[in-house]
Amino acid sequence: MLVLVLGAGQLAQMMSLAGSPLNITIHAYDVTSGTIVHPLTKALIGDSLATAIEQADVITAEFEHIPHQILEQCQISGKFYPSAEAVKTGGDRRIEKALLTTVKAPNAQHKELNTRHDFKQVIEEIGLPLVFKTALGGYDGKGQWRLQHHDKANVIWQEMEASLGIFPNQSIIAEQWVSFQKEVSLVGVRSINGEIKTYSLAENVHTNGVLSLSTVIDNPLLQQQAEHIFKAVADQLEYVGVLAIEFFDVDGKLFVNEIAPRVHNSGHWTQQGAITCQFENHLRAICGLPLGDTKLTRHTAMINILGEDSVPNDLLSLSDVHIHWYGKEKRSGRKMGHINVCADSKEQLKLKLAEVAKVLDYNISSLC
Amino acid sequence: MLVLVLGAGQLAQMMSLAGSPLNITIHAYDVTSGTIVHPLTKALIGDSLATAIEQADVITAEFEHIPHQILEQCQISGKFYPSAEAVKTGGDRRIEKALLTTVKAPNAQHKELNTRHDFKQVIEEIGLPLVFKTALGGYDGKGQWRLQHHDKANVIWQEMEASLGIFPNQSIIAEQWVSFQKEVSLVGVRSINGEIKTYSLAENVHTNGVLSLSTVIDNPLLQQQAEHIFKAVADQLEYVGVLAIEFFDVDGKLFVNEIAPRVHNSGHWTQQGAITCQFENHLRAICGLPLGDTKLTRHTAMINILGEDSVPNDLLSLSDVHIHWYGKEKRSGRKMGHINVCADSKEQLKLKLAEVAKVLDYNISSLC
Repeated sequence: MLVLVLGAGQLAQMMSLAGSPLNITIHAYDVTSGTIVHPLTKALIGDSLATAIEQADVITAEFEHIPHQILEQCQISGKFYPSAEAVKTGGDRRIEKALLTTVKAPNAQHKELNTRHDFKQVIEEIGLPLVFKTALGGYDGKGQWRLQHHDKANVIWQEMEASLGIFPNQSIIAEQWVSFQKEVSLVGVRSINGEIKTYSLAENVHTNGVLSLSTVIDNPLLQQQAEHIFKAVADQLEYVGVLAIEFFDVDGKLFVNEIAPRVHNSGHWTQQGAITCQFENHLRAICGLPLGDTKLTRHTAMINILGEDSVPNDLLSLSDVHIHWYGKEKRSGRKMGHINVCADSKEQLKLKLAEVAKVLDYNISSLC
Repeated sequence: MLVLVLGAGQLAQMMSLAGSPLNITIHAYDVTSGTIVHPLTKALIGDSLATAIEQADVITAEFEHIPHQILEQCQISGKFYPSAEAVKTGGDRRIEKALLTTVKAPNAQHKELNTRHDFKQVIEEIGLPLVFKTALGGYDGKGQWRLQHHDKANVIWQEMEASLGIFPNQSIIAEQWVSFQKEVSLVGVRSINGEIKTYSLAENVHTNGVLSLSTVIDNPLLQQQAEHIFKAVADQLEYVGVLAIEFFDVDGKLFVNEIAPRVHNSGHWTQQGAITCQFENHLRAICGLPLGDTKLTRHTAMINILGEDSVPNDLLSLSDVHIHWYGKEKRSGRKMGHINVCADSKEQLKLKLAEVAKVLDYNISSLC
């Protein structure tokens, strides 16, 4: 089976590693260079997307910011999963918010704005603090502003106005600031037949807008809410493959923050902590194979390695600590790899994270 | 880190999958074609072994039947692990038997033979039944004969005489038939600093001389004997990397059958059943990284897929059943892939194996 992935980053790479044992070969479309490459070796396979689409048995995407004409080109082949619509939903906050409204998923009060007049109006209507997010092209905290006091309104508006000009059809979504206790995410998978399996919720910690730590949590009340919303969203989109939903936990009630129509950084822990990892389950779903068991096997946390291309070897001496490098060129703040840390209990995981923090010379409190 | 593997089969392939997350790239030397290829994609990388040796940081082997001049060429680079000597030990039963004598490891009474006169003598000295094995080039039951009754002696001698002419420096090792209760193997790893970690023993079932099933067993008395012999052999060879030793269990006493100086088919279960799999641990050892924990995580059995290139999709519906295809062309009896079956207890594993046998339409008794 040959699967073409739109995007040639670490997610395509990890799909390739998970696909190989299933006899599933992955080719990746590098959107920047317009070439088809092998996601692991980066060897050039071809330079025609049309040919790659024709040759592939199945097509999928590793990110949502894909030009719409490429999505349409894939969609008409009849081989594209989850679907052009689902990918657009993750790539455009206007479509995402409309979907949340349709399926009645709780989320922050919000409004679209395009002009200074809209900006003033939304401040009056919703009130401060507000979070502003570009409708298109935002990720890892990019394209976001937080307005707490009126005296910063001018500066923020000028920045937002500049960004409005960058993408055609760009706009800004203003959201009421949600005062949350924690951020959690649910990763799950839906098959072509509509079967759904979800993983355990993970609690996520972001540093400068970028995910730095995901830890599996055991909270049946939150899990139940998250699964209910997951089903509503996935069924509405007639989704096929892995889908991730990020939530704010506000006093035990979940509000949807974002939808990612793909395998997700907050699901990397499943490589060691679940019976079937998210990458394998995504491939199983889009290739029409039975879904794999998503059950937790060990308490697991995932630490992102940001902007570093090495860690002390001592880290490998710790039992059940697994490094996953992406083989990328070092750049400040870039996601270079991740570390999965496993233990038999929550308490042991906490102790193990403290050991890992010590070896990495991280602030322990940032991991526990 | 770039590792050159002598051999481009499934073992190099699984090293590649295990190495990628550690930023270890594997190139493979295909001994048949004399080319350097990527073990997963089979893409041609080069056609000069000398250049590949020069470019590699570390060199290792996935099989032991390698021309000695190639082993020497690798050895003088100073980058070859375990060592030319260790690989030769696995590839020549005369050297293997001499090693077992040196380290006083129990093994069957045996004698080398080259002529019809030797053949007659060994029958008189050791007595029937006898097993004859070519010193060089034997694997998966090939190059082996069993003589139970004197009236077959002539036929068997003629076959053996023919095979003596195929390899230069070939000879035959005659072994007393060992009446064993079961065959078990120990896979372990030794680091550059001499640290040793071993996995749980696996019980092996062979079908027509080819491994068909390996099941982890929990037998402290056998484990202790096996680990003692493992340490003696590995230390004597100043071994670096994964080493497998196959044993006969005769009334609770282990006799060494064979030594395999490499990752081994009876260690494939470690991909799902141990904290660190044998492929990762081999790479860790030869690259000078700390060894990974070899602890059992789940009761696991491995079923070889022989001569088939598909299995019913229903198999993937069973929880914690993991398929590993090698992407090879179908050929009768060929090792095409394997299935790792995991469960929380021995009893559950037995039930799961019965389910797997049903889906595969195998004789259940062959798996339980």
